[in-house]
Amino acid sequence: MNNYQLPFAVSQLQAAYAQAIDDDRLEAWPDFFTDDCFYSITSHENHARGLEAGIIYCDSKGMLKDRVSGLREANIYERHRYRHLVAMPSMVQADGDRVKATTPFAVYRITRNKPSELFVTGCYHDELRISGEDTLKIARRVVVCDSSVFDTLLAIPL
Amino acid sequence: MNNYQLPFAVSQLQAAYAQAIDDDRLEAWPDFFTDDCFYSITSHENHARGLEAGIIYCDSKGMLKDRVSGLREANIYERHRYRHLVAMPSMVQADGDRVKATTPFAVYRITRNKPSELFVTGCYHDELRISGEDTLKIARRVVVCDSSVFDTLLAIPL
Amino acid sequence: MNNYQLPFAVSQLQAAYAQAIDDDRLEAWPDFFTDDCFYSITSHENHARGLEAGIIYCDSKGMLKDRVSGLREANIYERHRYRHLVAMPSMVQADGDRVKATTPFAVYRITRNKPSELFVTGCYHDELRISGEDTLKIARRVVVCDSSVFDTLLAIPL
Repeated sequence: MNNYQLPFAVSQLQAAYAQAIDDDRLEAWPDFFTDDCFYSITSHENHARGLEAGIIYCDSKGMLKDRVSGLREANIYERHRYRHLVAMPSMVQADGDRVKATTPFAVYRITRNKPSELFVTGCYHDELRISGEDTLKIARRVVVCDSSVFDTLLAIPL
Repeated sequence: MNNYQLPFAVSQLQAAYAQAIDDDRLEAWPDFFTDDCFYSITSHENHARGLEAGIIYCDSKGMLKDRVSGLREANIYERHRYRHLVAMPSMVQADGDRVKATTPFAVYRITRNKPSELFVTGCYHDELRISGEDTLKIARRVVVCDSSVFDTLLAIPL
Repeated sequence: MNNYQLPFAVSQLQAAYAQAIDDDRLEAWPDFFTDDCFYSITSHENHARGLEAGIIYCDSKGMLKDRVSGLREANIYERHRYRHLVAMPSMVQADGDRVKATTPFAVYRITRNKPSELFVTGCYHDELRISGEDTLKIARRVVVCDSSVFDTLLAIPL
C-alpha cells in the first residue's frame, strides 16, 4: 500500500468497525482485532499521565468476546445505541507490516424517545497489523476519551 | 474505479451533496439523483421494522424539485440552516454500474443568534449508479435517522 | 496529484492540522501555513456579506507565531481543549500549484470535569499551495463559523 492507500485503508477499517458497533453487530467486533490484541478505554488525563489501566481493559480477543457475551446476557446495552462519527486518521506511520495510527472520533448516544446526544469525543491510538494483501487488524487500541465524566454510562464498546 | 477509488468517490459525492444543502443551493440538490430516483427520510425504528413510508418520501427527481419549490415558497427553511458532517462510507459494494453504500452522518442546526446544536444523527443507505467515467448519481437514498423525535422540525432535506 | 490524490491530500492536511491543535502542539500550527499567509475567523453572516475583518485576523506566519506566544503567556488556553472533527473536503479545485478547498468541521470543547460539548461548526475556506512533490501549505484560510455567538470564548485557533 502506498502513501495514499494506507491512510485510506485505515479510514475504511475505522468506518467498518464503527458501523458494526452502531448496527449492534457486536459479535463481529472482536474480529477487527488480532488474537493477542490489547484494547482499553481511558481518559485523556490518565493517558497523558502514562497510566495504562483504563476504565475498560482487555488483553486478548477472547476477553473481547467475553465482554460481548456479558453485554448480551446483561442486556443493558439495549437501552441505548451509539452513532460513531470517525474522522480521517490524523497520523499514519508504517514500519513493515506494523502501522501506527491516530484517529479522532465523536460518539453520539441514542436513547429511546430522545434525540441523539453527544456522548463522548476522543481519539483512537492504534497499532495495526497488515495481514494478507490488504487487510488491517487492530493489535492494540487505546481509546482515549477527551473527558472522563461519562464512565458510569459505558457499556457498549467505543 | 478500483477498491480505493470507489469508496473515495462515494465520500466525494456525499461531501458535495451536503455542501449544496448547507450552502442553501437547494436547486442543485435534485441533480445528485437519477431521474427515477427514490428518496425518503425515516427513523431507525421504522427502518428496522421494514416500514418503507418514512416521514418524507419522493419517488422521482420531479418530486424532489417540487419539494425545493415548496420550500422556497413557504420560506420556512430560512429560519435555520444545517451543517452536515459526513463520515467515510462504512460499506461500499459494487456490482457493475450499481453501488450500494452506507454512510454515517451528523447534522447540526443553526438558528439565528444561537450556537450550532446537534439536530440529528443517522446513516445514508444508498444505491448509486456510476454514470459516465467517474460520476455517481443517487438512485435510491433512504436517510435513516437514529432518533425520531425531530420530525416536526424537518423542512430542509437531509 | 490526480483527481483522487488531491482531495485526499487535502483531507490529510486538515487532519494533521486539527490534531496539532487538539494535542496542544500550538507551536506547530504556524508551520501549516506559507510565510505570507492570511488567516481569519469569521461568522457565516459576515462572510456572506463580504466582510473581511473577522473576529481574529493574521496576515503573516509571524502573526500566527505571535498569537501562539500570546496564548502561552496568557495561559488561558489551558482552561479548555478542543476536539476537531473534520469531514472530507466538499470542494477541491486545482490550478497549477494553487488549490481551492472547502472543508466542513465541528469543534468540541473539553473543560475539566465536564463532558465534551459542541463548541462551533463551520467550514474552512482555503487557498493552498502545493510545495515540493506532495506537501500542501495553507496560503489563505478563512474559518467561517456557522454561528457567531461563541466569540468571547475564542482563544485557541480553530
